[in-house]
Amino acid sequence: MQETQGDGHAARRRRLAALVADAGAGAVLVTRLVNVRYLTGLDSSNAALLVPADGPAVLATDGRYAGMAAEVCPEMETLVERRAAEALTTRAAASGHRVLGFEAHDLTVERHAALAEAADIPLRPLGHLVEDLRRVKDEEEIGLLREACAITDRAFEAVLPEIRAGVTERAVAIALERAMVDFGAEGPAFDSIVASGPNGAVPHHHPGGRELQRGDLVTLDFGARYGGYHADMTRTVAIGEPAGWQRDLYALVLRAQLASIAAARPGAETRDVDAAARGPITDAGHGDAFTHGLGHGVGLEIHEAPLMGYDRTGKLMDRVPITAEPGVYLAGRGGVRIEDTLVVRPGGPELLTTTTKDLLVL
Amino acid sequence: MQETQGDGHAARRRRLAALVADAGAGAVLVTRLVNVRYLTGLDSSNAALLVPADGPAVLATDGRYAGMAAEVCPEMETLVERRAAEALTTRAAASGHRVLGFEAHDLTVERHAALAEAADIPLRPLGHLVEDLRRVKDEEEIGLLREACAITDRAFEAVLPEIRAGVTERAVAIALERAMVDFGAEGPAFDSIVASGPNGAVPHHHPGGRELQRGDLVTLDFGARYGGYHADMTRTVAIGEPAGWQRDLYALVLRAQLASIAAARPGAETRDVDAAARGPITDAGHGDAFTHGLGHGVGLEIHEAPLMGYDRTGKLMDRVPITAEPGVYLAGRGGVRIEDTLVVRPGGPELLTTTTKDLLVL
Repeated sequence: MQETQGDGHAARRRRLAALVADAGAGAVLVTRLVNVRYLTGLDSSNAALLVPADGPAVLATDGRYAGMAAEVCPEMETLVERRAAEALTTRAAASGHRVLGFEAHDLTVERHAALAEAADIPLRPLGHLVEDLRRVKDEEEIGLLREACAITDRAFEAVLPEIRAGVTERAVAIALERAMVDFGAEGPAFDSIVASGPNGAVPHHHPGGRELQRGDLVTLDFGARYGGYHADMTRTVAIGEPAGWQRDLYALVLRAQLASIAAARPGAETRDVDAAARGPITDAGHGDAFTHGLGHGVGLEIHEAPLMGYDRTGKLMDRVPITAEPGVYLAGRGGVRIEDTLVVRPGGPELLTTTTKDLLVL
Repeated sequence: MQETQGDGHAARRRRLAALVADAGAGAVLVTRLVNVRYLTGLDSSNAALLVPADGPAVLATDGRYAGMAAEVCPEMETLVERRAAEALTTRAAASGHRVLGFEAHDLTVERHAALAEAADIPLRPLGHLVEDLRRVKDEEEIGLLREACAITDRAFEAVLPEIRAGVTERAVAIALERAMVDFGAEGPAFDSIVASGPNGAVPHHHPGGRELQRGDLVTLDFGARYGGYHADMTRTVAIGEPAGWQRDLYALVLRAQLASIAAARPGAETRDVDAAARGPITDAGHGDAFTHGLGHGVGLEIHEAPLMGYDRTGKLMDRVPITAEPGVYLAGRGGVRIEDTLVVRPGGPELLTTTTKDLLVL
């Protein structure tokens, strides 16, 4: 799906141009494709964008995407060139910019050498400027994320009757992915996780041929992609009446997750938000079994800034979508993880995934 | 799926070590993950491999993959480090290698700078050494590819009854992907293409909500991934009795495809193999409508060396798997593409996809 260009993309380019000016460069060459998409709306496998500190941006892409570019961002000058980055580097030199910034975390050493050969202009790494901009979403982006999450909720509800003893993990994963597409997703946002019984102790378990059994806790971690935006939700359910330790573990993780959501306010340190969930889990003696960070930003990528863990610094801000996903993993026994996608707001977080967090007994 | 290590991986590392010695480097740092997998069997999202010209290779990966590494390549020394490439660069310097080769097409400028800081050893780009090795497959690899193609054939046969008027492109694509997983695939090798009627004129059409109609040609381009190896097959079928122009176009593309397969011999220039298909299509007046190259290598990636087109140089060799996929695309009317995955062999190509190429009327 291609979003049509609204003010959104032009406003994003203006914000980037201001950062380029602050950095003292004449222009920046954006080569990371997800960043090109963010700034133009064009979803291409071969494109680059030149954003000057002052003046209009120029897009380059190859013939396969020329029609799409004309449709998505008709007001932008577009060079139709297979070697998109080289063409824009040449253009930057011809425009008389003294320094061209580039994305050192995207350009390989090989491509960087090719650009240095293509034109006589000094290249300078400018840091993760676009990723920094992408951290705070505009309402158009939040709208797409909201829809991706709504599809995810609907798929969970639709597949619930198929989550029962005798069904394989893989069959449940496929049913979830199929339901998301049926409800309008472009596809799954990432490889779905369905981890049953002892497999629940593996945070990134790949769904396999194990059949769900009475007495299992089953962790389902999945999400829909819509308009390029990624939803992320986890629920843990019980197959048959859960044992006492399973109920207790579930209640603990839920309490931790709710505490982290309550802490997710503009201005909060990300490690404090992580600590809000880690504290009760540690107090219960399971600190070592919560083996990952609390969560991460979501948007055009499934994992983006801010990454949230006990050793991460940074502050949350209004309109930053994140996940909150504490988990406890007990080797040989199973695990519980509960996750929502939410948006940080001044009046308290907006939950985008809204599926019940009561322990479902199926 | 992790393959268990056989002689295959050790033999691959020995071949690489010989190339490193030829290049005059003390060792090469392999950072491209698919190359690490090729050389060790380890499928990790964070790993690197140090292969000296002389002496044993050293693997590095983070704690999440330590157990997997111990299982897949138990005889290799493995450093458990989150900064895998940095750890191996430090090791290379400590081992007294005078020059450390690296993959300039994989390392970003940012990561390269971090490695240069990590240790006092000159870094030198060594070209695409591992990709060059990967071009010719060993029989273990061809066996995995054969199974991926067999799953692809079985899925096509299983889904045939669902390919009929009134069904959407997207539903057919999902049915194919589901059938491949049911038959043992890890997943689809790439995003499946189902292009019906006029959509068939778009080579990379994304399957959408259009319902198949009587009078359509429908192009189905899909494949299974198995053991990390990628199958690629295209068939074009007719919904209801095809018109004369449709039968003629199908016969033309089939003749072109068969000619290219016959030309795929060890020692053949890739552009000559392309020309074997392009000739008859050009003679029939459709040269401009065959808008892409003949095909590409397949293996651990869906597109790998050799790329085959009219402007590509290089020779085929024994045990090189390729696709042969000529197509003709008529704007507003539709298209035909026919594709097999095959292995170049001295006695003539081994077809890995074996689904009938008679025009199926459904």
